[in-house]
Amino acid sequence: MEDHRPQLPKKTQELFERAVQVIPGGIYGHNSPANTIPGIAPYFAERAEGCRYWDVDGREYIDFLSSYGPIVLGHNNKEVNATADEQRKAGDCFNHPSERFVELAEYLVGSIDFADWAIFGKNGSDMVNWAIKIAREYTGRKKVIYIDGAYHGSGNWCPTRGPSGSIAEDHVHSHTFLWNDVHSVHDLVKRHKGQIAAIITTPYHHPGGADSVLPAEGFLQEIENVCKSNGVVFILDDIRAGFRLHHGGSHQVFNFTPDISCYCKAIANGYPLSAAVGRDEFKQAASKVFMTGSYWFSAVPMAAALTCLQILKRDKVVEHLQAMGKRLTHGLENAAAKYGLQVNCSGPPALPYLSFIEETNLMRMQAFCRYCMENGVFFHPHHNWFINAAHQESDIDEAINIADHAFKKVANKVPA
Amino acid sequence: MEDHRPQLPKKTQELFERAVQVIPGGIYGHNSPANTIPGIAPYFAERAEGCRYWDVDGREYIDFLSSYGPIVLGHNNKEVNATADEQRKAGDCFNHPSERFVELAEYLVGSIDFADWAIFGKNGSDMVNWAIKIAREYTGRKKVIYIDGAYHGSGNWCPTRGPSGSIAEDHVHSHTFLWNDVHSVHDLVKRHKGQIAAIITTPYHHPGGADSVLPAEGFLQEIENVCKSNGVVFILDDIRAGFRLHHGGSHQVFNFTPDISCYCKAIANGYPLSAAVGRDEFKQAASKVFMTGSYWFSAVPMAAALTCLQILKRDKVVEHLQAMGKRLTHGLENAAAKYGLQVNCSGPPALPYLSFIEETNLMRMQAFCRYCMENGVFFHPHHNWFINAAHQESDIDEAINIADHAFKKVANKVPA
Repeated sequence: MEDHRPQLPKKTQELFERAVQVIPGGIYGHNSPANTIPGIAPYFAERAEGCRYWDVDGREYIDFLSSYGPIVLGHNNKEVNATADEQRKAGDCFNHPSERFVELAEYLVGSIDFADWAIFGKNGSDMVNWAIKIAREYTGRKKVIYIDGAYHGSGNWCPTRGPSGSIAEDHVHSHTFLWNDVHSVHDLVKRHKGQIAAIITTPYHHPGGADSVLPAEGFLQEIENVCKSNGVVFILDDIRAGFRLHHGGSHQVFNFTPDISCYCKAIANGYPLSAAVGRDEFKQAASKVFMTGSYWFSAVPMAAALTCLQILKRDKVVEHLQAMGKRLTHGLENAAAKYGLQVNCSGPPALPYLSFIEETNLMRMQAFCRYCMENGVFFHPHHNWFINAAHQESDIDEAINIADHAFKKVANKVPA
Repeated sequence: MEDHRPQLPKKTQELFERAVQVIPGGIYGHNSPANTIPGIAPYFAERAEGCRYWDVDGREYIDFLSSYGPIVLGHNNKEVNATADEQRKAGDCFNHPSERFVELAEYLVGSIDFADWAIFGKNGSDMVNWAIKIAREYTGRKKVIYIDGAYHGSGNWCPTRGPSGSIAEDHVHSHTFLWNDVHSVHDLVKRHKGQIAAIITTPYHHPGGADSVLPAEGFLQEIENVCKSNGVVFILDDIRAGFRLHHGGSHQVFNFTPDISCYCKAIANGYPLSAAVGRDEFKQAASKVFMTGSYWFSAVPMAAALTCLQILKRDKVVEHLQAMGKRLTHGLENAAAKYGLQVNCSGPPALPYLSFIEETNLMRMQAFCRYCMENGVFFHPHHNWFINAAHQESDIDEAINIADHAFKKVANKVPA
């Protein structure tokens, strides 16, 4: 019998076989090949530069995932690396924070309109989990309400990525509302009156494996009002979109004001750092909640963040991401239409999510991404993409050209 | 009225005043000056090299805290930095793991006797929290039992550092036993029969603000037996001591075998990485528990870890840490005795904890550390210290000499 399983290229195959021996699942978490196209997607990266990367078998890709977000200026950005190097010559992980710690807090407080203070960690989850603890400390209440289907990291309180390893008590006080449905928010707040510590939202809804949905007119403003009138802390999870839509935080694009906001991805161009900022009212509660980590005060990622954030502003990167994102999504929509395919590009152009309209089984999306990957463009089949500052018009056009061929193939071979 | 508050040096004072404006508590977590000697201890680090560092006012210290553990080879180790640089030239934070991910897992599996697989994160807490989820997934049970007073990171399940921000449900299934008291372990296991997912211990007891206590003969072996006969997962939190006592993990020093072991501090000489290893039996459960982070697959810290772990073995660093630790603790005990003071150095010499015998108010310890800090030796007053590979006999002797003067002053001026 013929073996129809896709053949991994030699080095990838060897390395994955070794990985499976010594690592649960071979590769786990958001990097698991099971989350992309097993057998087709690259499994291991070798090197990266600007908006391109190469896997261990030397296959080159135009990178439209930007490492799931951190790479906002392009891989191996020279200016960020130079500041990081400068700091590392002095030192990185000390007994104490460095001056960079204060400078970065000042920078965030200066650039995020409502921010009076900042704290730092390593992952998005660190910040979201800390923010929830601050809200519980401040309110003396237990419940956290969040958008149905939203991913807020792998903290125990948020079982979106499945319940494995968690216990009922972890999320007994977590409740969900429906995005853009004010009634479902009001219902929850009424049902749990006086018990809700925090409402947490993303600036727009970006669930896994589904279209992104922007906030309806007035929706986030209504959440802000509900929080104010019920003594609830409004936490913004701006980890994915933060600094890609506005250098002062995504809430400024959608005209609302949270109490605490969490950032990670785009803050330091891949150097490990996350941050949260908040209003003065919550500063004392924040100082009472003990959260820490061995490397949370390290100076190198903070130096990198200072440079990264300054470049984002100086080079008007937000505008560039939007322009390149628009060029890409318009190009993809037009290319698809040539072959009678209807695709939907949802979310802000800087973080586009592509889907085939009315497709429910992902067959066309998988076939499309497969063809693109095989021809040197890395599009993720069911996670939003991330434009970065290194993408130039020529890269976008090259990707659209490959996508054009992919759409043609999909239209001919994959039934709707 | 005269102001008796200690005067911070100029730059420190200025920077801390700025910090207080924009950061809860000014400096928080384990780095908070409130945890050392407020007003006296350095607050902000400027640079570090080998076993010495300088604060922002140019004050030089022999570093006996080694950044609370991560700096095992000395600050700015050239070999580790060179590998890290090499990797960074290729790339760090990709869409996929790098070859380093597999190599490091293989290295850990090859050097830790019971390990069949490895996983990675950024902080110690990441690994301990993941291990507990694996144990809950594997057993289908909820309860976690741990040593009274032990610090296992800032995860919600372990309220050792205070309950602020946590809710009762976070630790309703956490129960404590007394270190070296087999009866208290048996009692708990009997009381919660069939409900215990995990017993978690450190390789020896190193509570905050109290002497370290080595395991009594047979104690950890009895925990191992209890776990085996009750279907409980035995988790070792080797985050603090790991690779400082034995390059294959601290359990090998004390002759017991856990099911899962967690590492962080000494793994990559300050590059942000943590790891857990486990036996095959738990591999499937590990692959089912979703845990991830934006930077958890980054290649630079893994490259650094490979080099750091190889140097630890090649240079017999464990032996060096022990020899330097012994030289220091013997020197301190002898110096104290000259002035009629009795001090106790507890814990392994590589991670010594100094206290004044029968002192309950920490006045002498604070005065001792204050004098040492004022004269260029950073001893923490109530956290264990960490020897690193850069400490040479001359550094130790210099520190002992300063400590000698400090003991003399304490004996004369600070009542017992």
